[in-house]
Amino acid sequence: MNRIVYLNGQWLPEAEAKVSIFDRGYVFGDAIYEVTAVTQGKLLDYPGHVARFHRSIGEVGIVCPVSDEELLAAHREIVTRNSLDEGLIYLQLSRGPADRDFHFPKAPVPTLSMFTQAKKFIDDDAHVRDGVSVITLPDLRWGRRDIKTVQLLYPSMAKMEAEKQGAYDAWLYQDGYITEATSSSAHIVTRDGVLVTRPLSHAILPGITRGSILSLAREAGIPVEERMFTVDEAKAAAEAIVTSATQLVQPVVKIDGQPIGDGKPGPLTKRLRKIYIDYHLAHLI
Amino acid sequence: MNRIVYLNGQWLPEAEAKVSIFDRGYVFGDAIYEVTAVTQGKLLDYPGHVARFHRSIGEVGIVCPVSDEELLAAHREIVTRNSLDEGLIYLQLSRGPADRDFHFPKAPVPTLSMFTQAKKFIDDDAHVRDGVSVITLPDLRWGRRDIKTVQLLYPSMAKMEAEKQGAYDAWLYQDGYITEATSSSAHIVTRDGVLVTRPLSHAILPGITRGSILSLAREAGIPVEERMFTVDEAKAAAEAIVTSATQLVQPVVKIDGQPIGDGKPGPLTKRLRKIYIDYHLAHLI
Repeated sequence: MNRIVYLNGQWLPEAEAKVSIFDRGYVFGDAIYEVTAVTQGKLLDYPGHVARFHRSIGEVGIVCPVSDEELLAAHREIVTRNSLDEGLIYLQLSRGPADRDFHFPKAPVPTLSMFTQAKKFIDDDAHVRDGVSVITLPDLRWGRRDIKTVQLLYPSMAKMEAEKQGAYDAWLYQDGYITEATSSSAHIVTRDGVLVTRPLSHAILPGITRGSILSLAREAGIPVEERMFTVDEAKAAAEAIVTSATQLVQPVVKIDGQPIGDGKPGPLTKRLRKIYIDYHLAHLI
Repeated sequence: MNRIVYLNGQWLPEAEAKVSIFDRGYVFGDAIYEVTAVTQGKLLDYPGHVARFHRSIGEVGIVCPVSDEELLAAHREIVTRNSLDEGLIYLQLSRGPADRDFHFPKAPVPTLSMFTQAKKFIDDDAHVRDGVSVITLPDLRWGRRDIKTVQLLYPSMAKMEAEKQGAYDAWLYQDGYITEATSSSAHIVTRDGVLVTRPLSHAILPGITRGSILSLAREAGIPVEERMFTVDEAKAAAEAIVTSATQLVQPVVKIDGQPIGDGKPGPLTKRLRKIYIDYHLAHLI
């Protein structure tokens, strides 16, 4: 590919964008990231993502070297420079290079990088039309999943295990309760039509799409319960759903080989996807 | 500094050693590392470290691009190029650059890097003479701590918390039992003179120094028990010890403010340190 990427204030051909082998993002996983969806060349729910970015970097004490205005301008410029119509912007901020020491450097020089990926996600693809299958795996990630760090080897291994088992993705569980999917939030719809999602805690990422869906569902009069749900409850649900910045609202029709509901994308999933897209296409920035 | 470092077969001034912002070590924490101690310009317990390196990369499916002979030659050459008398060699192997995707790349090109750090550790320093203090913190790391990945943000945060509380390091616990220290293995000595250490599992790193100490202790007729021990048991112990490649055998004399034994480095700690150093100085390669 031939993208133009952003690195510490510079615009570079992607092959030239490099960081030190001493960068703490490389040797300690000491970095935060965000992914913002782009459609029609505009940003989807950017305020949510930048707010979470600030929360994450605050939790680990990394200071962003640019202002919010500069960050937004860079998001817009990377879209323009790459003629991106639909896809995503990946943003990463590491604590930067320093001679290796578990202690944070006293005068850190953080590394800010951004790149784009083209991807179609507004129009329904096969995953949305037919739904996807997931397996369940124990959630072995660290205890602060509410912070969006780059320590993503386990989600990566879990996706590979899902693929090996012929599934699209994995839902993770802890103490019998679903936490979330490898890179998206997990929800179910009960047979009474209630949208159920795990409450926020250190166990899951505060999904931006999750938050928006809950808010839009409540506005639409759809009953919502934020509570834990078990793997068994998920398998017995009427519908199962994942939400993320670039999957938006996606139906899960099989868990560990067991069909969910009638094994087809359910009505509430479709409705929520439409509500989400309608709202956000009218609020792109 | 002005070190010469190794990167994918090249010897470079440290400022020129850079990896892509797309390197999976940078965006997914998808990398394995090792640290080998160097003294008298020679490698200490290198066979143990290279064996664990192979185990770690095997567990996550990263393939080392060089042979064992080349890896050993590079370890020797980096010592020579940096005139390293005493210190350490840091080795890292990431799955390499690829457009960002949780799925492993189908044709990965791993990134192999190495650098040195000068550090004195054979002669007793103040930490060895006086012992160090630790605090205890919950172990929030992921569930595969037996694999030596670069996902080290929590140990880093824990070291900062220890420093904030005026301590040298933190011992981590899970379900009331000590797992290990942030970057070393934790042991205690009971009032009956038994060296107690947690058995190997996914919960702790198989410490190379730990393994060597257990073996040398058994040969010396020192009673050893591999079993779990609680935070309370550690605080009531006669001695407390950490072991690691460059700390060797170090006395811990205070846990959460409570003196261990008489609050001074204990006799078995001193004896084990001497046994360890005597053995390995005679087996440098």
